[in-house]
Amino acid sequence: MASTLIDSAIFQGIFSSDEMRQVWSDENRTQKYLDIEAALARVQGRLGLIPQEAADEIASHCRVEQIDMALLRRQTERIGYPVLGVVSQLGALCRDRLGEYCHWGATTQDITDTATVLQIREGLALVEADLAAISAALARHAKAHRDTPMIGRSNLQQAVPVTFGYKMAGLLSAIERHRQRLAQLKARVLVAEFAGAAGTLASLQTGAMATQAGLCAELDLAQPLIAWHTLRDNIAEVGTFLGLVGGTLGKLSMDVKLMMQTEVGEVYEPYAHGRGSSSTMPQKRNPISSCYIHAAVSVVRQHAAALMDAMIADHERSTGPWEIEWIVLPEAFCLMAGALKQSRFVLEGLEVDAQAMRRNIELTQGLVMSEAVMMGLGPHLGREAAHDLVYDLCREAVSTQRPLLDLLAAHPEISRHLDRPALARLLDPANYLGQSGVMVDRVLASLG
Amino acid sequence: MASTLIDSAIFQGIFSSDEMRQVWSDENRTQKYLDIEAALARVQGRLGLIPQEAADEIASHCRVEQIDMALLRRQTERIGYPVLGVVSQLGALCRDRLGEYCHWGATTQDITDTATVLQIREGLALVEADLAAISAALARHAKAHRDTPMIGRSNLQQAVPVTFGYKMAGLLSAIERHRQRLAQLKARVLVAEFAGAAGTLASLQTGAMATQAGLCAELDLAQPLIAWHTLRDNIAEVGTFLGLVGGTLGKLSMDVKLMMQTEVGEVYEPYAHGRGSSSTMPQKRNPISSCYIHAAVSVVRQHAAALMDAMIADHERSTGPWEIEWIVLPEAFCLMAGALKQSRFVLEGLEVDAQAMRRNIELTQGLVMSEAVMMGLGPHLGREAAHDLVYDLCREAVSTQRPLLDLLAAHPEISRHLDRPALARLLDPANYLGQSGVMVDRVLASLG
Amino acid sequence: MASTLIDSAIFQGIFSSDEMRQVWSDENRTQKYLDIEAALARVQGRLGLIPQEAADEIASHCRVEQIDMALLRRQTERIGYPVLGVVSQLGALCRDRLGEYCHWGATTQDITDTATVLQIREGLALVEADLAAISAALARHAKAHRDTPMIGRSNLQQAVPVTFGYKMAGLLSAIERHRQRLAQLKARVLVAEFAGAAGTLASLQTGAMATQAGLCAELDLAQPLIAWHTLRDNIAEVGTFLGLVGGTLGKLSMDVKLMMQTEVGEVYEPYAHGRGSSSTMPQKRNPISSCYIHAAVSVVRQHAAALMDAMIADHERSTGPWEIEWIVLPEAFCLMAGALKQSRFVLEGLEVDAQAMRRNIELTQGLVMSEAVMMGLGPHLGREAAHDLVYDLCREAVSTQRPLLDLLAAHPEISRHLDRPALARLLDPANYLGQSGVMVDRVLASLG
Amino acid sequence: MASTLIDSAIFQGIFSSDEMRQVWSDENRTQKYLDIEAALARVQGRLGLIPQEAADEIASHCRVEQIDMALLRRQTERIGYPVLGVVSQLGALCRDRLGEYCHWGATTQDITDTATVLQIREGLALVEADLAAISAALARHAKAHRDTPMIGRSNLQQAVPVTFGYKMAGLLSAIERHRQRLAQLKARVLVAEFAGAAGTLASLQTGAMATQAGLCAELDLAQPLIAWHTLRDNIAEVGTFLGLVGGTLGKLSMDVKLMMQTEVGEVYEPYAHGRGSSSTMPQKRNPISSCYIHAAVSVVRQHAAALMDAMIADHERSTGPWEIEWIVLPEAFCLMAGALKQSRFVLEGLEVDAQAMRRNIELTQGLVMSEAVMMGLGPHLGREAAHDLVYDLCREAVSTQRPLLDLLAAHPEISRHLDRPALARLLDPANYLGQSGVMVDRVLASLG
Repeated sequence: MASTLIDSAIFQGIFSSDEMRQVWSDENRTQKYLDIEAALARVQGRLGLIPQEAADEIASHCRVEQIDMALLRRQTERIGYPVLGVVSQLGALCRDRLGEYCHWGATTQDITDTATVLQIREGLALVEADLAAISAALARHAKAHRDTPMIGRSNLQQAVPVTFGYKMAGLLSAIERHRQRLAQLKARVLVAEFAGAAGTLASLQTGAMATQAGLCAELDLAQPLIAWHTLRDNIAEVGTFLGLVGGTLGKLSMDVKLMMQTEVGEVYEPYAHGRGSSSTMPQKRNPISSCYIHAAVSVVRQHAAALMDAMIADHERSTGPWEIEWIVLPEAFCLMAGALKQSRFVLEGLEVDAQAMRRNIELTQGLVMSEAVMMGLGPHLGREAAHDLVYDLCREAVSTQRPLLDLLAAHPEISRHLDRPALARLLDPANYLGQSGVMVDRVLASLG
Repeated sequence: MASTLIDSAIFQGIFSSDEMRQVWSDENRTQKYLDIEAALARVQGRLGLIPQEAADEIASHCRVEQIDMALLRRQTERIGYPVLGVVSQLGALCRDRLGEYCHWGATTQDITDTATVLQIREGLALVEADLAAISAALARHAKAHRDTPMIGRSNLQQAVPVTFGYKMAGLLSAIERHRQRLAQLKARVLVAEFAGAAGTLASLQTGAMATQAGLCAELDLAQPLIAWHTLRDNIAEVGTFLGLVGGTLGKLSMDVKLMMQTEVGEVYEPYAHGRGSSSTMPQKRNPISSCYIHAAVSVVRQHAAALMDAMIADHERSTGPWEIEWIVLPEAFCLMAGALKQSRFVLEGLEVDAQAMRRNIELTQGLVMSEAVMMGLGPHLGREAAHDLVYDLCREAVSTQRPLLDLLAAHPEISRHLDRPALARLLDPANYLGQSGVMVDRVLASLG
Repeated sequence: MASTLIDSAIFQGIFSSDEMRQVWSDENRTQKYLDIEAALARVQGRLGLIPQEAADEIASHCRVEQIDMALLRRQTERIGYPVLGVVSQLGALCRDRLGEYCHWGATTQDITDTATVLQIREGLALVEADLAAISAALARHAKAHRDTPMIGRSNLQQAVPVTFGYKMAGLLSAIERHRQRLAQLKARVLVAEFAGAAGTLASLQTGAMATQAGLCAELDLAQPLIAWHTLRDNIAEVGTFLGLVGGTLGKLSMDVKLMMQTEVGEVYEPYAHGRGSSSTMPQKRNPISSCYIHAAVSVVRQHAAALMDAMIADHERSTGPWEIEWIVLPEAFCLMAGALKQSRFVLEGLEVDAQAMRRNIELTQGLVMSEAVMMGLGPHLGREAAHDLVYDLCREAVSTQRPLLDLLAAHPEISRHLDRPALARLLDPANYLGQSGVMVDRVLASLG
Repeated sequence: MASTLIDSAIFQGIFSSDEMRQVWSDENRTQKYLDIEAALARVQGRLGLIPQEAADEIASHCRVEQIDMALLRRQTERIGYPVLGVVSQLGALCRDRLGEYCHWGATTQDITDTATVLQIREGLALVEADLAAISAALARHAKAHRDTPMIGRSNLQQAVPVTFGYKMAGLLSAIERHRQRLAQLKARVLVAEFAGAAGTLASLQTGAMATQAGLCAELDLAQPLIAWHTLRDNIAEVGTFLGLVGGTLGKLSMDVKLMMQTEVGEVYEPYAHGRGSSSTMPQKRNPISSCYIHAAVSVVRQHAAALMDAMIADHERSTGPWEIEWIVLPEAFCLMAGALKQSRFVLEGLEVDAQAMRRNIELTQGLVMSEAVMMGLGPHLGREAAHDLVYDLCREAVSTQRPLLDLLAAHPEISRHLDRPALARLLDPANYLGQSGVMVDRVLASLG
């Protein structure tokens, strides 16, 4: 019986992904504890800090299947943290009291934080794969529609033409920056924690730093300069990274929603039988995935703020702030996995209606080309005179509902310089796409 | 396999409660859908809008045990919402195609919103019960310690004495305001939704308002003046209410944490064997529950912000904002249930060390009584002269580490007016508690 | 030289209002301190706690013009709070050292909090007036357009018809709930603070509660049951109230933005020469006010979260949380004043294009009336058969781009029962408005 | 008359800094517009796109002193944005209508965004300088107190000893990561915007990309791959960076507040006469700066969430989200400037009481050394036996209030192996500092 949407038997496939939910599952978290305890035992056995026999025995039991989860729940409720429960069960599994050498010199938070980092590594790998797929889909659309005209909109008003490829390339440029951010933060985040009760490793009278170095090597994590039990900028940075990625996906979903409006109809989320449709309103084509994305990223940006709150950690081991991370990190990752999945789905199957795009450009009967006409007439009439004349004709076109071309062609001052076909060329959006294609090319060229 | 802490097999009892998780479970949500469909059928049967036979048949199948949850997941992933899946399964359970009369005139959001309101009602009842218990515990402490002196602290500096009962009564006054808020918002929130595709109930050509009124009566909910599909102030208000309650619990947990410091030691969370203690550091007594409370309410206040974001709903049925509520409401309620449970636990078993409180007052050897001494000497020396003299002696006491009483008694100008016993009385915190007791009484008297 | 938009010489009129900025100005805050000191002196003079002569002298100098603001800044930077600086300047203004009786028994936070409450009272009065004006404008539109059909939209898809009055009445219902919330919270919020260093009023050996009661009466504020120096639910509630109002204004602005789209064009923000237009794109009509509203309320909902954070106040006088309120409260009020002003401007001058609304309904050539047709044919063909037949014809209409009426009229099974005029009536949105008018009437009837 | 604390005549020096307020002032913003217009004119003159004479004339008037700010306010309120007002005034200042060539091919958002980037560059330079100063102060303390023992605290309980240098080095490691983040994000953020109405630069029929490249070079900003009018991850990243820095400063302020408690008294904010003290409570030493820091960073993390909300930008130029940045960016920078200033003040003048630190370690009469004793006895008694024996003696020490050393020395099993001096050495915190010094050295060695 799940209470959250993320774990809901009904909704889990919508708001998260199986892979990401697995990363943050009880099983995986507990297995990570065991992986770390095993690695620690191996290192300390090798260093001669604990008997090799103990190291071998401990490592042989570090499988989550051997842990009694119901017992672990009771232990956790009593102690407040699950690590000691796991250590106690692990110790009991070992023969000849060799389990006493388990968790040697470690503190609860060492294991918990390092496990979290290992989960973050897995979670970021999933995010990275989705970003790569989204990037590829965007690049494909950018290339395919490099020169497909559509209206550019400013303040939700039709402004001047762009291309659909240009729109996709803009998003692509943002996704690429996120991939760069991810690469940079990994160096800060993928760092182990092994420092003892107050971070000084006093619990190991000999071999302290060697154990730390060895453990980090075993786990393929960087070694910290100093304990980070209450220095949580790295964890919070992961949250802000997810929030920033969410912002870009939110922009994508906003544009898709707006383009799918009945009155616009330029792109559609992939069709699947019954998906996002209504039993009584066949004209509807709901942007279902975009709704999910919008919702998830709205929540995740608040999670980012909560993770910054968690940075206000007191002294050497914090009293409450740490637990904020426990709650928020799994949810932020799981919801982002859902948003990324839905974004991939949208982009990989996006239906683009180039004809509708063209039709919408023509909706104003030429008005959106006024800037182009002003610039085309400038050399003949003078810039300002051209501006004023075209502006007046546009207002006439609006009030009389007549095509701008007709008014332009009928105006003696204009027809003196340009005939109707020349004016029609000025009014052709394909001739006023500016650097759309160049910018698409620049973004595509920047890909690795 | 759960991924969130709320649903975690290990942590669910810590960060939430079984009762609250049940309220927001897949089973209860789905049962609520069925309850509403049954009520709708009953009302429409009674009104003659659908055959009585259909009403009876439909109602007879409205049990969640009859729903195939795996199928429902697939239906939900295809359609985007679970309601139609439930309706379709319910229809199929009915004999003789009587299921066609199910969901008559309703839209998905009608059922979803009304189910949410029913869940909110159950959730608020649990909150209300916890608030009552917390109020009772606070009142008990306020009464018992009405006159137990402890130092009042300002800016984390010892200031002047208060009583522990006064501290408890302050919290009690806030809890009572929350109970008042809860009573007031219920009238706005416990309102059904039944309005059809765009809220106009055009889907029912006859009996529309009668059906709406009847359904509300069946469910014991208020009838809306108008559809609220995209007017979500009420839902957001529930979130802000939970956030406000969280703020008060956070203040409680902050004070408990500070009073449990090794250097302070005035109160303790209830002791349970092994709870919050360390295997190697027997001097530790960790404020475990306070940690959990701190973390939960930090997250819930961000949830409140997300629910306000969800108010930015477009047109007649929103495109994404609604789903924010789906994610956030269950979590906010579940986390608050955990915070309330932990707060009850802390307050109902709180250990109060009145001796330590007295000892801490005396830590500064009288300095915290300087205001009292200034006021006591004022009538003899003049207010300002008394202030300056005492202030100087206090600084001397600090620099020489001598008790203030010694310095006061040794000063000729002072000893001329007051002898050592009289000065000792001025320095007795029990004589400088001001209106602590009166304020406690005022708060207690305000209870119903 | 201002750095914030609220105080900007350029933007202040856009993002706030002069009246609200005045409420939170240095001058008004400082005058409030003085008003309280004057009231305190008057009460204590009356009670004989200080000489009447002192009370009169103090009160006679409580005018902000007499305060040296540059000096006050220096005092504030030294002490950390402005109140003692004001008291010190006030004392110096008094003849014969009568100023010594100023601030008798009060603590800095007493004056600061009570001043804040007085500012909140003024701020809420401005909010209340704007809500009343918005309510009146919405009621006017709801009445005028009770029966003006427009398309209802769900998931940004055209769904079924509603009326514009119905849309306005929905917003009106939310505004009315906000007015109710405001009335209810005033009783909790408009409460004075007068409690001394740790809240016990030990600073007044006689007449403590009488002074408190008298001060509250002087200021027309309620008397607290107990000090609320670190119980900040009331202040946070003001923040959440503003956030909730912001949510509704955000919904209004979202709908206006969407309806002003070039492709939709159903309503317009009031026109003013040059307002929201482009020098080169005459077709543009930017929803400028809606942009401002959107931005302001996005920030204010985060302010609400910050105010809930400020509730985590330690002990008897908090160490940092209090100052969160100092920063956030003025901004939340000022930004909301801007959002309310812009909302009034939009609503009081809103241009409604009923013809465009009708045109948009017809955009799909009848498809949005499919539900109506299904229901109209139900009695003749059976509900399910009617549904399936109409659904198929709708899909044919989409694929062939033909009007639904033509297809319906051409279908033998249908034309057998209903002729073309009867079918046209079914397709007339004015005949499928459901309870739009009834709901409008219900909301209007609920107004006081 | 200012309404915000940032611009308050009383508080501006507390919650912000003059330098940062100057960066975000009306004057500087407007001057940046003019700088960009001048640079644009110069580039376009050089490229022959506009007459050199016009370029010279325009550039000669690009001084904010020539702008009529009152007029600009009126223009801004009419148009909705200030840029066109500035352009119009600038044009009017130019002789012979040469001003017509001003703003050639640019759109309002090009100028606004680029100005914002220039302000961000100035703002980040101030942040960078403060981070460097904070880093230096922390390094100084870390070095000076590399071996100064103090108690490490976990869950606000005394745990095991650390050194004060270790505590400082931990903070230092976080500050260094922030400096790394800042260096990395500059490459993404310090990018100009110049793209025309919908980002395609169609407004320049020739020389579009050359103008863009030239303008970027003039302003020493990077050239964008594509317009970023509605791709705001970079702006939001600046906000999250400030929020992350705030988290670390919040942790610093939390620790200082806790260490300044009357009952702890280990460090003090710098003393200045009257600063943070009470007129009647001479024992108080308020952590004033820490309060300000706490409050500022609480607000800034909410600003970060608002900036992520601003990423949900529609189409080519957004309708409201952009204005969120206008409000939030200046405030986030100004508040952080205040928090950084206060943090520098605290750290550069921090008073460290090493004796008090030692005294606090001894508060529990040896209990905090229990882990050390267990480990010291392990080789003699066996690890587990040592643990159990010491644990029992610790409990006895607590219940009998006797020093642990006495109990250890009196125990026959223990005294057999270790005499009192040897036991005293085990109980000496200076002998149980673990890798504190090594970690300090590692952090210091990592500095450039």
